Amino acid sequence: MSGPCIFCKIVEGAVPSRQVYSDEHCVAFLDISPLAPGHTLVVPRRHVTNLLDCSADALVAVTRALPRIASAVVAATGATGLNLLQNSGASSGQVVMHLHFHLIPRREGDGLGYRWNAGSYQTGEAEALQDRITQLLQG
Amino acid sequence: MSGPCIFCKIVEGAVPSRQVYSDEHCVAFLDISPLAPGHTLVVPRRHVTNLLDCSADALVAVTRALPRIASAVVAATGATGLNLLQNSGASSGQVVMHLHFHLIPRREGDGLGYRWNAGSYQTGEAEALQDRITQLLQG
Repeated sequence: MSGPCIFCKIVEGAVPSRQVYSDEHCVAFLDISPLAPGHTLVVPRRHVTNLLDCSADALVAVTRALPRIASAVVAATGATGLNLLQNSGASSGQVVMHLHFHLIPRREGDGLGYRWNAGSYQTGEAEALQDRITQLLQG
Repeated sequence: MSGPCIFCKIVEGAVPSRQVYSDEHCVAFLDISPLAPGHTLVVPRRHVTNLLDCSADALVAVTRALPRIASAVVAATGATGLNLLQNSGASSGQVVMHLHFHLIPRREGDGLGYRWNAGSYQTGEAEALQDRITQLLQG
């Protein structure tokens, strides 16, 4: 039931990839359009769309391998840091609708990273959001 | 043994935060300098530096709660998507050296997101990196 999902096809081996890791729960392979050399994607074998459509168990199945893969990517590339990025939903930048984690090796001055234009809250705004999120999580 | 770590102090309650979620393994609270309203941080109770200094179990303890928290943040803010971001190391943008996940609510045209300047590999470069990462993960 994988349909036309390109990452399901990569997991099945129907589409080739530069695989670097595989276990019973997830597969990791080089991104073909890397933001930096060694940019790696980690995907669950089982199709889920993203973090907003994912059980705790389905997420844990993928995240368990992330520390080892991240350390290997950093060691292999000689990077000094790494961004882990997961985009959920088209408005967030998600293109392939199969949960995937980007592991992006970083170096000082490489020009990569998240656009960091921090704002601040108006009076009462943070409190209202805090209440709303808390209530949703207690509901 | 938390030393001067600000996130350890927040976890202990010694420094106030706008907490939205808490369980035996992790705490979630609003970022005080939000990239978007509802920008939330999720941190493990137990101090680890980042993904490169983290056991699988320590990571899973935090990630297990992420789907629920992410869905609540999106619902509470009326966002249409979300970026999950974890910075590991100063060169990646990590400022507080206590593992934390950014949950950043996203909307079409909000101007946020990762700087996406994809490159490509020279002949042989991807194969060499694939071999190196694979070997490190098998070693």
